[in-house]
Amino acid sequence: MTQLETMGAAAKAASRFLMNAGARKDDALLAIAKALRENASAIIEANQTDLKNGKEAGLTDSLLDRLRLDEARIEGMAQGVEQVAALPDPIGKVLDGRTLKNGLKIEKVSVPMGVIGIIYEARPNVTSDAAALCLKAGSAVILRGGKEAIHSNCAIMSVMRAAIAGIGFPEDCIALVQDTSRQSATELMQLTDYLDVLIPRGGAGLIRSVVENAKVPVIETGVGNCHVYVDASADIEMAANIIFNAKTSRPSVCNAIETVLVHKDAAAAALPAIKAELDKKQVEIRGCEKTREILGDCVIPATEDDYEREFLDYILAVKVVDSLDDALDHIAKYSTGHSESIVTADYSAAEKFTSCVDSAAVYVNASTRFTDGGEFGLGAEIGISTQKLHARGPMGLNELTSMKFIIKGSGQIR
Amino acid sequence: MTQLETMGAAAKAASRFLMNAGARKDDALLAIAKALRENASAIIEANQTDLKNGKEAGLTDSLLDRLRLDEARIEGMAQGVEQVAALPDPIGKVLDGRTLKNGLKIEKVSVPMGVIGIIYEARPNVTSDAAALCLKAGSAVILRGGKEAIHSNCAIMSVMRAAIAGIGFPEDCIALVQDTSRQSATELMQLTDYLDVLIPRGGAGLIRSVVENAKVPVIETGVGNCHVYVDASADIEMAANIIFNAKTSRPSVCNAIETVLVHKDAAAAALPAIKAELDKKQVEIRGCEKTREILGDCVIPATEDDYEREFLDYILAVKVVDSLDDALDHIAKYSTGHSESIVTADYSAAEKFTSCVDSAAVYVNASTRFTDGGEFGLGAEIGISTQKLHARGPMGLNELTSMKFIIKGSGQIR
Repeated sequence: MTQLETMGAAAKAASRFLMNAGARKDDALLAIAKALRENASAIIEANQTDLKNGKEAGLTDSLLDRLRLDEARIEGMAQGVEQVAALPDPIGKVLDGRTLKNGLKIEKVSVPMGVIGIIYEARPNVTSDAAALCLKAGSAVILRGGKEAIHSNCAIMSVMRAAIAGIGFPEDCIALVQDTSRQSATELMQLTDYLDVLIPRGGAGLIRSVVENAKVPVIETGVGNCHVYVDASADIEMAANIIFNAKTSRPSVCNAIETVLVHKDAAAAALPAIKAELDKKQVEIRGCEKTREILGDCVIPATEDDYEREFLDYILAVKVVDSLDDALDHIAKYSTGHSESIVTADYSAAEKFTSCVDSAAVYVNASTRFTDGGEFGLGAEIGISTQKLHARGPMGLNELTSMKFIIKGSGQIR
Repeated sequence: MTQLETMGAAAKAASRFLMNAGARKDDALLAIAKALRENASAIIEANQTDLKNGKEAGLTDSLLDRLRLDEARIEGMAQGVEQVAALPDPIGKVLDGRTLKNGLKIEKVSVPMGVIGIIYEARPNVTSDAAALCLKAGSAVILRGGKEAIHSNCAIMSVMRAAIAGIGFPEDCIALVQDTSRQSATELMQLTDYLDVLIPRGGAGLIRSVVENAKVPVIETGVGNCHVYVDASADIEMAANIIFNAKTSRPSVCNAIETVLVHKDAAAAALPAIKAELDKKQVEIRGCEKTREILGDCVIPATEDDYEREFLDYILAVKVVDSLDDALDHIAKYSTGHSESIVTADYSAAEKFTSCVDSAAVYVNASTRFTDGGEFGLGAEIGISTQKLHARGPMGLNELTSMKFIIKGSGQIR
């Protein structure tokens, strides 16, 4: 057995314990929160090593900031775990049920997934967040974080495992892959005997690698080439506000927009108003010919590649389209199926857009930035699914569960 | 572009049409049913070629019987398609919804998957069944049937495509892969740009190949190493009846049982009664040492392999266990997570079994043979999922759908 297979088998065994752990899961979460607080200094010390290595490796300031832990951030992690404990248990819900003509009583009940794998990048707070959500959902979890955070993650995991062992849980309910080589990630993606689902959280490169290599069931997350379409009938001020918010309030996240499509009849009035807003944050505009005719040479000519890319930066592609249908075609071609929004005053345009755009979240007259578990009221979020199987859009605790049928009879045969 | 990529792109384009085809889908289904009847003789002629080739290739009588089409069977296929037309539309259902504090109105709505791939074996009736279910669920479908049925499948597909084209549907809503090489199956499993989900319907070999090769999201179906556990408190006659039914009513299907576990306190009374029933169909018993002590040398010694295998035949593995916990351990180790049943008169044993067995369908005092879309009241069945993601157990039209969020605002930004 490889090290990961051993880890997988241990997680599988622990998952049988968790399947019926009920409210004791909350005790485990509260024990984790307490232990994180009590061991904050040890975790911060481990984090110092990661920060030092990160600086030497030339990580950018923003990456170093994501990596950094201090008392306040560890307090935030502990509170996050407590918030998960306070959520309703997603397990054991009767989702459906009836009595068949032959007297069999059939119920569809939510049950744990079993063993969940999560691959993520250099954000040590994800280690406690993801572990807490999986534990609450009754599943064992195998985490594999980015190599830049390995010392922090090991320290956090060690604290969490000791905490749950202290109240009688198998420590293998939560585990961390300490080998951060690319090979260990690939092996995790192929651990078919033990993993019930793998959730990659990260950029387009990670997602591609998972689609290419995974043999276990996967929930793809996070890649968002999102669009706002400004309809002929749009309120120009509303459109400019929504576009400014969706592009600049946090450009690095997946629900930020990358392309704006403008109906030709609205372009002359809308484009200057949109540009005026975007100029407040020096957003670079890459536009089609018609956009450049209206806005001038300050607009860089857009290439095919610009419509395909997730800039995740203060850059926006803009295209003038002839009709709503053209906008729908553009979105069908380039969207990653995350979030798209129409700004319109026209009832039938709104209905057509929401019917025809095949994305996880389709908006009318609102910013795409709302695609988020917290905003949608899920209580917590493990990621945003951009696939159509099992979960789509923001995933909370319910999306981390499976179901089974329980059928009670009195000797029925078929 | 390869031939399959071209087919995938055409299906993707057709899926945009289907997304909002609404009740016209039923017109298409009725047109298909009519065309199947009208073209029965051409289909039967093509089927003759398959049968002739099959005989020359030495197919067994039971395989030839599955392959055979006649007027009555084609009438059955047409009626099957009409039954699907009569089912409620699974698309456009509002699954959840509320108004957020900021005034955004959010709805979760069922939508089509997009493009569904189905790989199956030499049963030409699946060609119309699967196409009808996917069409009703608003998805385009790419079918790849077994090579033994290729002439029949081509004839059926050609009739169906002409029928839907006749009422203005893109014929690429339904398509058949005519290349039946292993390579074309692998290519279909990796058609990530076009397939939203792949459903393999077939034996363990096909499922393994899909798990090994697929890059598109998959719903595993059909492998069932199912168990009946006879508890210490079981009604012996009920246990024998259930076991006889679950093993012999149709041994070749996935919801038939392969292993019986008997509590040691029930073994002396239960095993002879079970054997007496099984003898009516000459079921071969492969048992543990204790089983052989009770039933004698007519029982073949069971090997480890016998507990792992899906016999799909008149063969049953039997094991005497010391306790319910031992039975649960055995099931956790060997079950494929399809269907398991406990026969018991003990309330807490029943509750523990249903809580702790991690299978798609868990029964108390009933035959596992009920795990079936028709029996569960789903109206139709595309297969039985043995994975935990998206769908588990019998899959009907609802399980062939995805969902999206539609959010309506009045200018909200975050």
